[in-house]
Amino acid sequence: MKSNLLSNIYNPADLRLLSETQLPEVAQELRQFIIDIVSVKEGHLGASLGVIELTIALHYVFNTPNDLLVWDVGHQAYGHKILTERRENFDTNRQLNGISGFPKRSESIYDTFGVGHSSTSISAALGMAIASNLKGDFEKQHIAVIGDASIASGMAFEGLNHAGVTNANLLVILNDNAIGIDPSVGALKKYLTAVKEGKNPKKNNMIKSLNFDYSGPIDGHDLPNLIKELNRLKNIKGPKFLHIVTTKGKGLQQAEENQVKYHAPGKFDASTGEIILKSEENLPPKYQDVFGLTILDLAKKNEKIIGITPAMPSGSSLKFMMDEIPERAFDVGIAEQHAVTLAAGMATQGMIVYCNIYSTFLQRAYDQVIHDVALQDLPVIFCLDRAGLVGEDGATHHGVFDIAYLRAIPNIIIYAPINEIALQNILYTAQLGLNHPIAIRYPRGRGVIANWEVENFGHYEEVKIGQAFCLKNGTKAAVLSTGTIGNNVILAINESENKDAIAHYDFPFINPLDTGMLLDVFSNYDRIITIEDGTVNGGFGSAILEFSASNNFKNKIEVLGIPGMFIEHGTVNQLQQLCKIDVKSLINLFQTI
Amino acid sequence: MKSNLLSNIYNPADLRLLSETQLPEVAQELRQFIIDIVSVKEGHLGASLGVIELTIALHYVFNTPNDLLVWDVGHQAYGHKILTERRENFDTNRQLNGISGFPKRSESIYDTFGVGHSSTSISAALGMAIASNLKGDFEKQHIAVIGDASIASGMAFEGLNHAGVTNANLLVILNDNAIGIDPSVGALKKYLTAVKEGKNPKKNNMIKSLNFDYSGPIDGHDLPNLIKELNRLKNIKGPKFLHIVTTKGKGLQQAEENQVKYHAPGKFDASTGEIILKSEENLPPKYQDVFGLTILDLAKKNEKIIGITPAMPSGSSLKFMMDEIPERAFDVGIAEQHAVTLAAGMATQGMIVYCNIYSTFLQRAYDQVIHDVALQDLPVIFCLDRAGLVGEDGATHHGVFDIAYLRAIPNIIIYAPINEIALQNILYTAQLGLNHPIAIRYPRGRGVIANWEVENFGHYEEVKIGQAFCLKNGTKAAVLSTGTIGNNVILAINESENKDAIAHYDFPFINPLDTGMLLDVFSNYDRIITIEDGTVNGGFGSAILEFSASNNFKNKIEVLGIPGMFIEHGTVNQLQQLCKIDVKSLINLFQTI
Repeated sequence: MKSNLLSNIYNPADLRLLSETQLPEVAQELRQFIIDIVSVKEGHLGASLGVIELTIALHYVFNTPNDLLVWDVGHQAYGHKILTERRENFDTNRQLNGISGFPKRSESIYDTFGVGHSSTSISAALGMAIASNLKGDFEKQHIAVIGDASIASGMAFEGLNHAGVTNANLLVILNDNAIGIDPSVGALKKYLTAVKEGKNPKKNNMIKSLNFDYSGPIDGHDLPNLIKELNRLKNIKGPKFLHIVTTKGKGLQQAEENQVKYHAPGKFDASTGEIILKSEENLPPKYQDVFGLTILDLAKKNEKIIGITPAMPSGSSLKFMMDEIPERAFDVGIAEQHAVTLAAGMATQGMIVYCNIYSTFLQRAYDQVIHDVALQDLPVIFCLDRAGLVGEDGATHHGVFDIAYLRAIPNIIIYAPINEIALQNILYTAQLGLNHPIAIRYPRGRGVIANWEVENFGHYEEVKIGQAFCLKNGTKAAVLSTGTIGNNVILAINESENKDAIAHYDFPFINPLDTGMLLDVFSNYDRIITIEDGTVNGGFGSAILEFSASNNFKNKIEVLGIPGMFIEHGTVNQLQQLCKIDVKSLINLFQTI
Repeated sequence: MKSNLLSNIYNPADLRLLSETQLPEVAQELRQFIIDIVSVKEGHLGASLGVIELTIALHYVFNTPNDLLVWDVGHQAYGHKILTERRENFDTNRQLNGISGFPKRSESIYDTFGVGHSSTSISAALGMAIASNLKGDFEKQHIAVIGDASIASGMAFEGLNHAGVTNANLLVILNDNAIGIDPSVGALKKYLTAVKEGKNPKKNNMIKSLNFDYSGPIDGHDLPNLIKELNRLKNIKGPKFLHIVTTKGKGLQQAEENQVKYHAPGKFDASTGEIILKSEENLPPKYQDVFGLTILDLAKKNEKIIGITPAMPSGSSLKFMMDEIPERAFDVGIAEQHAVTLAAGMATQGMIVYCNIYSTFLQRAYDQVIHDVALQDLPVIFCLDRAGLVGEDGATHHGVFDIAYLRAIPNIIIYAPINEIALQNILYTAQLGLNHPIAIRYPRGRGVIANWEVENFGHYEEVKIGQAFCLKNGTKAAVLSTGTIGNNVILAINESENKDAIAHYDFPFINPLDTGMLLDVFSNYDRIITIEDGTVNGGFGSAILEFSASNNFKNKIEVLGIPGMFIEHGTVNQLQQLCKIDVKSLINLFQTI
């Protein structure tokens, strides 16, 4: 489709020159523009298609960037980006040095607040609104757009609870499509559904009970009505709440009908919507599936096993267990804090709980890990998916702090498997009874064993807690790796001319360390290189330095990992290059041995 | 008062032998017992006095410990402890090797879940209730008792939101006394007050909108009615919610009238209730007051300054600013996550925000510090009160992880002042514009400069970012301290026979490190000792080890601090002895130099 109106919109000022009757045409063009590019370049699709009309209406009615618009989570902000000076480089979305897949302050003045994790928008927009009041600007508008999955997270409630007693010029727009990445859950979702269906009288209104001026629900795809309502709300002072109803994936039939799959569908045919399947033959499994298949298998044999995910049944592959053993597999919504303490409560009653949380999202439950699990030494099994560099999702989503922040906590075993077999074996071992909490971190993406499911799945071996492995002896230097980055080391050594010089040790246990093995290593190698896909500030390498200092060793130790800076988006390999932990960088380093 | 009934109650089974008409007498005796002991031994008073009737009613109606009772926060659980086998050692409350001031699983089978931080009870009790269902025990009762300040925290909402869609045998009891440590705030509090005053029709019910069977509000001091209601609820399956209204400090006039002061009043006259004042003459100031006085002073001169506290206006001394400049000083309730992102939102608009959060509670907002502040490099000023060992509050409250968990995060300046002057100067410097976030950590209790307020308050000097100080040269070894533990080093050196041998460097900046100074130190001293009142796993000492390794130094480095274990309650000095960072332990260590 030839774009006519959209191609003349550089920023919202241009949009506002159009008549209201032209906006549906803009919506159609914008939708097609997103479909055309995302179908080829990949990215988040459904969420942005669902808020096309809202995006246009907001920029049409409000005076952005002077009025401040905060998108919660932000994977729905593609339309926003295209309308705000980034249409021409939208095809660089999520690529190294390209635009971010999420709103980002350093990228555009229209991105008022960086997002990626959910449920921050109300607090951020309220902060802006209070600041405006203090600066004497009572005209400026502050808008938080938040989905029904995100508003059910505790942090959003905290924001509402505060906003309701202020006179801040805050408009919270609830984009209610009954889905996050997976379908929304919980009592609030049930309540919202009842409201939409007219079953709850508006006078019994949870939002009103928090002192907000509530309006809606209205159809979020009805542009004229949306614009009318936003214009009305613009002139009301104080905290306001607009409940709109949208369809995720709106405008692309397959995306509407299969909302989970089309959240981020990969490449697809822009005209038919059909997903272009990649051949998965002979590919190693995804680590998430190793988890999902293994917990299901273990849970069938051990009825004390419980699985918990905060809103990631698909992403964690806990859905396998949810489908087959729903009574013991729980999606608690975007509620990491609750997920962890719920797990702790279950553990007090002798249940064996696998609490699967992406590494970056466990940051949301740090206190609960310390206070409710570790302090009580409850044997909760944390499965940290998406640990390490995650690639295109970028700085908000890399799971690179977990080793450091977990290592500070007493009692927790920390384990990073080098491959699928190690992962399934530690999952197996954990349910035998460790008497301590354990955190098992593994990355996004696929493993290294193509025939894992046929050859290895279900053949469990007990892991000896604290045991490290010598994968290869050497004559000059020892490389100590933890986790799947060890596979880079294996490849690099194999391609090194001086491979005989290099020893390689796999330390899946970051805590407890295999001190016996370390004594050997420190006695036999003057030069030691540690490598991890986590921050070097306080991580695995630091643990080795602490061991060295407390044993008064004088070996030369080099610590490789993520440097003390935020890493942006790009492919995992590109980002590893930046951090000098890719295979080529290691080969170069190994030449110096 | 001679105790008759209470002295025969060893545990709730004994209580249940009494007739209902005897219970008011038990309540009176229990109240007096708490007053008598806390007046001498100190501890939390008001909260426990407020739930005497509820405590008795719960243990009378429910079959504890088989039925599972979770006290939120837990500083209200003194009555519970006394009725559950701990009457005779209640006088060891909060002392080293004595009973904990909070429920604690390892202490008693009646303490089903360890608490200390707020808002965990609903999640924990729900986890227990789901576990009971899975085990086929549909008779077991699971009760969470939570205050109105705690239920406004996001985590509690997450628990309610999940519980409302389960069939778990969960009873949530809202103990509504309109106060936490300071008076409750927020829209939910307003709503609850309206409910109590009959202004909100029950059909407009926030709790019901979350699918709970709601009853109340009822008088929480009316034992017969409480017992009747609990008996009724015991026979209702699924999630239930009872709203009771109590008075904090009930039964002691002064405690009822001055609820903030009598939360933890110190020693007082058990018969009159009068607080026994300690002479504060010539005592150094509390660090919290250095913060409170300084921010007020700075805020008077700089209208961009904002103060935020999540529910600790008294404890942080932000109340000084709240009293004088209420429009720029915010108590947001127990909502650390919101507090941090609110601060970030304000910072985007050019405000200079001091976000004061106890070190242990910043754990609740770890993700927000990373994702909303540090990633965007917003110059929020975090003031971490109660950093390090806090003494009698014990394991749940020590602020010993902050250096390690903050050091993992890029962009954040981390500063630990050695004394009051350093604290006020960094508070001053922070508002000059650092262009980065900063975390300033300082301990509970008093400083070291008796005449600080007279001599130093208001005389600001700009701190040079990253600068360390040589406090004393030496001939053999260098001690590198960060923060107020440096005063132990000063005292220990002064009392050491070989003081000439020992150099002492103050490193207030943990990030960025003064690498120039470190190069000097490493060049001049073979033996280096680091000391911090934080965990040794990933803390300041590890930062020094990382520096040493990356510069290929071979010095002998000893890292002192909190070992990798949870530290229980006791006086700060006792706990420092355990960790070998008290003055005497340092003197002993320095003899080896």
